[in-house]
Amino acid sequence: MNNFEFYNPVHIVFGKGTISQLSDLLPKNKKIMITYGGGSIMKNGVYTQVTEALKGFSYVEFGGIEPNPTYETMMEALALAKQEKVEFLLAVGGGSVIDGTKLLAAALCVNDEPWGILQGEIPVEKAVPLGCVLTLPATGSEMNGSAVISRTATQEKLSFGSKFVLPQFSILDPETCYSLPDKQIANGIVDAFIHVMEQYLTFPVNTPLQDRWAEGVLHTLVEEGPKAMKNKTDYDTMANFMWSATMALNGIISRGAVEDWSTHIIGHELTALHGIDHARTLAIVLPANMNLRRNVKGEKIIQYGERIWGVTQGSANERIDATIEKTVAFFESLGVPTHLRAYDVPKETCTLVAERLKNRGVVEFGEKDDITPELVTKILLDRY
Amino acid sequence: MNNFEFYNPVHIVFGKGTISQLSDLLPKNKKIMITYGGGSIMKNGVYTQVTEALKGFSYVEFGGIEPNPTYETMMEALALAKQEKVEFLLAVGGGSVIDGTKLLAAALCVNDEPWGILQGEIPVEKAVPLGCVLTLPATGSEMNGSAVISRTATQEKLSFGSKFVLPQFSILDPETCYSLPDKQIANGIVDAFIHVMEQYLTFPVNTPLQDRWAEGVLHTLVEEGPKAMKNKTDYDTMANFMWSATMALNGIISRGAVEDWSTHIIGHELTALHGIDHARTLAIVLPANMNLRRNVKGEKIIQYGERIWGVTQGSANERIDATIEKTVAFFESLGVPTHLRAYDVPKETCTLVAERLKNRGVVEFGEKDDITPELVTKILLDRY
Repeated sequence: MNNFEFYNPVHIVFGKGTISQLSDLLPKNKKIMITYGGGSIMKNGVYTQVTEALKGFSYVEFGGIEPNPTYETMMEALALAKQEKVEFLLAVGGGSVIDGTKLLAAALCVNDEPWGILQGEIPVEKAVPLGCVLTLPATGSEMNGSAVISRTATQEKLSFGSKFVLPQFSILDPETCYSLPDKQIANGIVDAFIHVMEQYLTFPVNTPLQDRWAEGVLHTLVEEGPKAMKNKTDYDTMANFMWSATMALNGIISRGAVEDWSTHIIGHELTALHGIDHARTLAIVLPANMNLRRNVKGEKIIQYGERIWGVTQGSANERIDATIEKTVAFFESLGVPTHLRAYDVPKETCTLVAERLKNRGVVEFGEKDDITPELVTKILLDRY
Repeated sequence: MNNFEFYNPVHIVFGKGTISQLSDLLPKNKKIMITYGGGSIMKNGVYTQVTEALKGFSYVEFGGIEPNPTYETMMEALALAKQEKVEFLLAVGGGSVIDGTKLLAAALCVNDEPWGILQGEIPVEKAVPLGCVLTLPATGSEMNGSAVISRTATQEKLSFGSKFVLPQFSILDPETCYSLPDKQIANGIVDAFIHVMEQYLTFPVNTPLQDRWAEGVLHTLVEEGPKAMKNKTDYDTMANFMWSATMALNGIISRGAVEDWSTHIIGHELTALHGIDHARTLAIVLPANMNLRRNVKGEKIIQYGERIWGVTQGSANERIDATIEKTVAFFESLGVPTHLRAYDVPKETCTLVAERLKNRGVVEFGEKDDITPELVTKILLDRY
């Protein structure tokens, strides 16, 4: 086991009817900004619940944060937040709203162009405090200090992380998920699943508990995910899905283990270039990553195949092949394609992504620093 | 799944050589009190590592906190801490030292007799901040806000809990465990195991992820525990044991699930009356609790038996019997007896414990409030 630190002070409030607790969780006498997305919270009753709880508080609103939240939109939010002297941020939505709000929280405390935060040039040393009302299980952003932001002008998608943007609290009410479109549920399942894989499917360093916990999330997503697709108003099913997605990326399953994140690095480029949903890019890249990097991941793939999918027969390579097939079949069963050709993407993208990463200096990555630009292209061609 | 809250801001620093990080973790310019136990930290090098890291800090020491820390001892510590105007507490030791230090932290902020904290009469509204250097995996106290204290004068053993006594940080260096006596390792394994059981082996409320995580800790203790007994200087083994014990009782595995804790309530009386090691009282009570309360716990016992011990054959009652046998055999294999008669205890204790609980008003407890004084006696007689 590797040395590690763990620090996650996010106060989780989970369950039916918990949005009303906002009035106890929010700071009195501070100017609040509510941030949200495209307006689904107006239709599903969440906006009403939130504003009901905020009676007596002083707040402004900023709506219209898009999926893959853009820097441009968040700079509009920044201008309003500055003008209104906002002191606390309340993100109401899914991972995109929360991620955008984290950037806003940090940007409110810097003087230079905030894009430097995402380029790693401006260290985040403080942030305006934030809280969340989660309405879409997927990214885990409600219980971590990371955010991913897209810049339309340059077709870039970059991330940053800081303990200062860990939410002070996050309210998770599974009933808010009852009206989610099927596609968002499917994406959420795949997103959470692959978050686990990035932290688990690497090479072993003797972390049996962390492995079991990672597998626990995978098992639960495999069992509850299809149920969530069929009956999105079953409370326990949605609760189990929601809690799994949060636990998938709050840091606990990977402490002391080895992480990868190369599937995300490559996937982000596909979103930046072609607007493919984040989870759907991961569903394309992961199987190729497993296939072409079996030299690095083989031992863990075999463990994963045995424990999650019951693959126990054949040679090591046969077991790895069978395990990849099971993984692909799971994603496809949720209606999530696992080939790039399912989208309107030219084959040149497979080399373009490698070039873009190379130009940003991302030339040796993955858990063994073994992914070169050539391998990036091969990975994408493998699942074209 | 039940509604729940989760809040655990303890900063964990885990791994080889991490005690030296104390100098970064401790507050500058605050008077510190180091608390410790019977002096094992003098022999195993931990005291030297701690004082080396504390060069330049202003501190006093209080040693001699016993296993099952007593109120009387902690009142001595309180007098010294007040006299020295201590502003930060550093517990160096196992669960007893940490529990005693939590009482001290709270007691420093109350004016009345601090025993009221344990009687539930004085609410804990603040506490002096504390940090920990853990040297014995077992209780999980390093990552929770609970403490159990014994009062010699009245032969009482009571607990309290507060978010204000959550450690600010805990350093877990598995190398500090290399010199532990076999008995303490065995006790630690059993203690952590039964902490999980109290939160898992109740009745199902549809919490598949929490179940998998509880089972993950149990699996790891079953696999790593015997290795730790055989080779206590194997780093990864002790790291896995240490992390499992912490994860067993930091709250995460039980969120949304149903908890019991009746084995602890009964076990504490055996320690208070006869000085039997905490873990050893649990190893006696748990099998009887499973046996006599199969009407409440049956469904979960069958799940536990199947997933942890591979018990899949026979009627429900046969599977429960076989699962209890496996559990008993595991404890016994570690050298931990599972019968009260293994200790110098008269049979009258079985009724005395029930009377003592009754006199304190503890007359209906367990996850279904089904444990009466009569059932307490039956449970103890079942494993006399």
